[in-house]
Amino acid sequence: MADLSAYTVRTDLALEARELASEARKSPEIPGVVSDIWEDGGMRITQIQVLNDEGAQAIGKMPGQYMTIEVPDLRKKDTQLQDRVATKFAQVFEQYLQKAGIGKDSKVLIVGLGNWNVTPDALGPLVVENILVTRHYFELMPGQVSPGYRPVSAVAPGVLGTTGIESSEIVEGIVEKSRPDLVIAVDALASRALERVNTTIQIADTGINPGSGIGNKRRGLTLETLGVPVIAIGVPTVVYASTIVNSCIDMMQHHFRTQTSNTHEILGMLDDLPEQERLSLVREVLNPLGHDLLVTPKEIDEFIEDIANIIASGLNAALHEAVDSANVAAYTH
Amino acid sequence: MADLSAYTVRTDLALEARELASEARKSPEIPGVVSDIWEDGGMRITQIQVLNDEGAQAIGKMPGQYMTIEVPDLRKKDTQLQDRVATKFAQVFEQYLQKAGIGKDSKVLIVGLGNWNVTPDALGPLVVENILVTRHYFELMPGQVSPGYRPVSAVAPGVLGTTGIESSEIVEGIVEKSRPDLVIAVDALASRALERVNTTIQIADTGINPGSGIGNKRRGLTLETLGVPVIAIGVPTVVYASTIVNSCIDMMQHHFRTQTSNTHEILGMLDDLPEQERLSLVREVLNPLGHDLLVTPKEIDEFIEDIANIIASGLNAALHEAVDSANVAAYTH
Amino acid sequence: MADLSAYTVRTDLALEARELASEARKSPEIPGVVSDIWEDGGMRITQIQVLNDEGAQAIGKMPGQYMTIEVPDLRKKDTQLQDRVATKFAQVFEQYLQKAGIGKDSKVLIVGLGNWNVTPDALGPLVVENILVTRHYFELMPGQVSPGYRPVSAVAPGVLGTTGIESSEIVEGIVEKSRPDLVIAVDALASRALERVNTTIQIADTGINPGSGIGNKRRGLTLETLGVPVIAIGVPTVVYASTIVNSCIDMMQHHFRTQTSNTHEILGMLDDLPEQERLSLVREVLNPLGHDLLVTPKEIDEFIEDIANIIASGLNAALHEAVDSANVAAYTH
Amino acid sequence: MADLSAYTVRTDLALEARELASEARKSPEIPGVVSDIWEDGGMRITQIQVLNDEGAQAIGKMPGQYMTIEVPDLRKKDTQLQDRVATKFAQVFEQYLQKAGIGKDSKVLIVGLGNWNVTPDALGPLVVENILVTRHYFELMPGQVSPGYRPVSAVAPGVLGTTGIESSEIVEGIVEKSRPDLVIAVDALASRALERVNTTIQIADTGINPGSGIGNKRRGLTLETLGVPVIAIGVPTVVYASTIVNSCIDMMQHHFRTQTSNTHEILGMLDDLPEQERLSLVREVLNPLGHDLLVTPKEIDEFIEDIANIIASGLNAALHEAVDSANVAAYTH
Repeated sequence: MADLSAYTVRTDLALEARELASEARKSPEIPGVVSDIWEDGGMRITQIQVLNDEGAQAIGKMPGQYMTIEVPDLRKKDTQLQDRVATKFAQVFEQYLQKAGIGKDSKVLIVGLGNWNVTPDALGPLVVENILVTRHYFELMPGQVSPGYRPVSAVAPGVLGTTGIESSEIVEGIVEKSRPDLVIAVDALASRALERVNTTIQIADTGINPGSGIGNKRRGLTLETLGVPVIAIGVPTVVYASTIVNSCIDMMQHHFRTQTSNTHEILGMLDDLPEQERLSLVREVLNPLGHDLLVTPKEIDEFIEDIANIIASGLNAALHEAVDSANVAAYTH
Repeated sequence: MADLSAYTVRTDLALEARELASEARKSPEIPGVVSDIWEDGGMRITQIQVLNDEGAQAIGKMPGQYMTIEVPDLRKKDTQLQDRVATKFAQVFEQYLQKAGIGKDSKVLIVGLGNWNVTPDALGPLVVENILVTRHYFELMPGQVSPGYRPVSAVAPGVLGTTGIESSEIVEGIVEKSRPDLVIAVDALASRALERVNTTIQIADTGINPGSGIGNKRRGLTLETLGVPVIAIGVPTVVYASTIVNSCIDMMQHHFRTQTSNTHEILGMLDDLPEQERLSLVREVLNPLGHDLLVTPKEIDEFIEDIANIIASGLNAALHEAVDSANVAAYTH
Repeated sequence: MADLSAYTVRTDLALEARELASEARKSPEIPGVVSDIWEDGGMRITQIQVLNDEGAQAIGKMPGQYMTIEVPDLRKKDTQLQDRVATKFAQVFEQYLQKAGIGKDSKVLIVGLGNWNVTPDALGPLVVENILVTRHYFELMPGQVSPGYRPVSAVAPGVLGTTGIESSEIVEGIVEKSRPDLVIAVDALASRALERVNTTIQIADTGINPGSGIGNKRRGLTLETLGVPVIAIGVPTVVYASTIVNSCIDMMQHHFRTQTSNTHEILGMLDDLPEQERLSLVREVLNPLGHDLLVTPKEIDEFIEDIANIIASGLNAALHEAVDSANVAAYTH
Repeated sequence: MADLSAYTVRTDLALEARELASEARKSPEIPGVVSDIWEDGGMRITQIQVLNDEGAQAIGKMPGQYMTIEVPDLRKKDTQLQDRVATKFAQVFEQYLQKAGIGKDSKVLIVGLGNWNVTPDALGPLVVENILVTRHYFELMPGQVSPGYRPVSAVAPGVLGTTGIESSEIVEGIVEKSRPDLVIAVDALASRALERVNTTIQIADTGINPGSGIGNKRRGLTLETLGVPVIAIGVPTVVYASTIVNSCIDMMQHHFRTQTSNTHEILGMLDDLPEQERLSLVREVLNPLGHDLLVTPKEIDEFIEDIANIIASGLNAALHEAVDSANVAAYTH
């Protein structure tokens, strides 16, 4: 397994981890990592495949397939766009189901990680609240459930600070008792770019690995720990103040490079420092004053509700044949 | 084990089950059941011991010890009274800990049954939210936790209708992983008397048995199913419309008996019918019209928050030596 | 003005007030009151016109037109039925707009009475939250608002117990400043029949009169007090325990009358007592024990959200020509 | 009146406006502005007096007295510190009451500005919810209210986007009807420094002026508009991403100045730009990418509840003689 400990980059997005690695190497090519980007009606889809340990070392992400849907206009409260993103998300997600060999009747457990009472960390519980849950019908009335549905269950296990138990332990216990064929884990993430916050959805077949997510979830949810495949869905909802500063200086560099060859004159030593050192400098300045908080946009309440609805609608449509874009709204609040 | 299926009395309180059995038998004595009542500063404490299967048959409750604290004035928003009830509850609860042989360092898991989004069923989750959770400190920093605390964890497993999984299955899984020495299960109950709603706390060493509680919790949480002792804490928050009618007719009977020997003249056949038949009649009349709902007082939001705070404060004080009535408020919201 | 003080019947529905008056008079005809009932696809529409003071005296409701939409299946979470009710409500409401002479461009203020923090009293604030508010666009960009919209504003003035100010005083102040042509007041009501709770919508052109509604709103919101017409929309969300008992005895009477001529034998004196005396008796029995609470169904959280959405959707469609049943969902949460 | 339009500094704190003016002038002395700072048990109290139009021009704040309580540790969930801050806030606030000539029996209206549904903007409504409201007792039972209380009312008028009416218009209407002697307006603010967010309380005798606050409140709440004195209480809860970047560059300058005389070498042109130009540059870089959002710390839900409780407790104690630090907790949730 890749040693990730050297990475201090504060991002849970494979997309950004790849960007950072490219910048550090001053090369778009990264051995062991294949990526592909395309546009699709106002959405940017990125597919990153971490092929092996070399790739995992290079970008600090486990081997596997990461797909990202970026929709910059998602914060504009356009309900038609939201519907289109839900449909696209369902399509992309169905590919993951197929790749994992999950048939139409396979049992699925959705795990909403995170903390109800911390708005930017409530993505998982909010998604769970809007999932069309059916497992109990199959258990109580076997053979009588309408065609087009599969057994779906959904839990929000809480966070270590409020339960006293690792969410991974809780999920392991539930998996052992309820025996799903697939686990889908939904979690809020940290990004390095404010514009990706609440506009980006990442899907990964790697499960949830230690240290990811914005809370304190130190053990993972993976095929190894749970015994069934785990697809992870994440949305960045927070960003460190230090990374905002750092990427702004970065943008200044790009900005001035289009105008002058001597960006050193403009940005001084900041221009010459490698990414990691500059970030360390920023943190050194911000930390003692309590400036380096995780922050989230002011409108987080609305953003997170919208994106949780998109994910829940998309999952309901992808998991149940009987649910499609015409009737999916009936299942979410 | 007692056969409870013959009982259609809609109460989860042993206190009321005993009353009903007494009325049916027209006798205060019930074989296999010992009860004791005393007053304590505006609180009425009742202890009912179901000694054996005969007693269990007679009142439809599992053998064990049931204590009830009734505080009619609890709906009056008197914060000093609330503090006194929390203190009394903690004292009564400590007796249960001792009887169960739960030492100072034993590990405790609190399970808040019920549904967050249904106010009268949210007692369990609300209590869990105010529990002082410590287990993770013992796990992460063994030997370094201040004296006076024990490892306490707390979960709200949700309800079948929203998770697709029996809450008992979820709790079994969590118990197997987190290995507590004791489980405390908190749940909202149904009462047969509107005046007991939100004014009464029941503690029982029997665990939660199938069919109790206001939701759909068909398997139990007991020593047999979990492998560790289970103390159940319940508060009635709802009552069937039919039982309101029935107990009102009952009260009319008592009312007129003080005035006349001929209550038949006043209440007609209603006076002569046995309790169960009269209740069946009331239901027969109410059901087809959708009248026989479970109802709760209009002020349920406030009542349930107050009583959840009382129980959480009481548990925090009873479970941790370092928490007492002087500092308990710091741990609840 | 009619003297209403003699009425102790605990209902805010003209429909029920008329029923009670008919029962008391043992006649379907009430002088000064004209009523009409028809079915419409699972909905029962009742129109009651109180023509004059004689009618007002007879049923204890102000002269005016009261329309009621009763939908017994509304508690079954059928989203298609909800859409149909919203459409029907919008149609009925448009008749009120026409009758009040409210043109397409007239300014409308929606007032959501009641208390946010008391679920069964939160109907008004919940409706306000889902209203498509447009007045500020007309103020800030006059002449530039798309056709098909009118200036709509919406406020939730709170209740006396939490603001210290009568909600009528607050509304008067807002009306004087914002100068609407029409006020629509939405409020939660009390019913005498549990099956009407959360299944019935009443519209009245009388405004809100003193003493109506489930809270403490002693001054009214009427043409007289505000200077503009006031249309009142109400939904019963609570019922007194005593009225549940009383109407159950009533139903027993009807039940046995189909079987025997001697209902006195069965119901004793209860059969002979006039409605009001029997209700007084029931209260006399319930009150001292704290039994005569206002109660609401256990599922109130969900019911009230659904019905608030229906009303908000219906109002949005009725008030703005550009909003119709195809796009109305985009404006509610 | 001072022309404030030239100011683009995004801060509502007089404290920060003064800092910025000092930096721009490279002088601690600002004509027309007197300031004083002292420490008090982990709190830093700053008093700024804007004496005249010259001072108002200089710092972009209306003439008047601004006091700020800064408590860096306020985000650490220390309930004892919270109590001490509430007590200090009450003391400072009482001085404002005296200066405004508000006697013990004078009537007070508390206005909670902002939006319930946007957590960082919900300060005002949250404070209102915890205010001990008494005006209705004086109205309903004149002469019978216990000594030690004054008539206090409290409203949350909503925001333009959800009501369609300027909150200032709503407040004017309410003031005309309810006739208070003093208005206290509570609002969430924007700061230029992340470490002041949720750690700082500002009190000002200037009322609320156009353009302040984090929402859209374009008309003011002042002695001129309302006819009674207005004391404004504000807490910064958000900060622009651009100001985080800008103040970080600022901090870098200070940081390196302690180490070298040639900060130009390190920070390049950024070192030479005046504050306003540098901020413009940062915005120019951030804006097109949607980076320049108003952001708030991840833990905003908890922070805002804590600080709203502090303010409500402090106001309850300062306004009612019968409420003191020993019993104040009984009035807040």
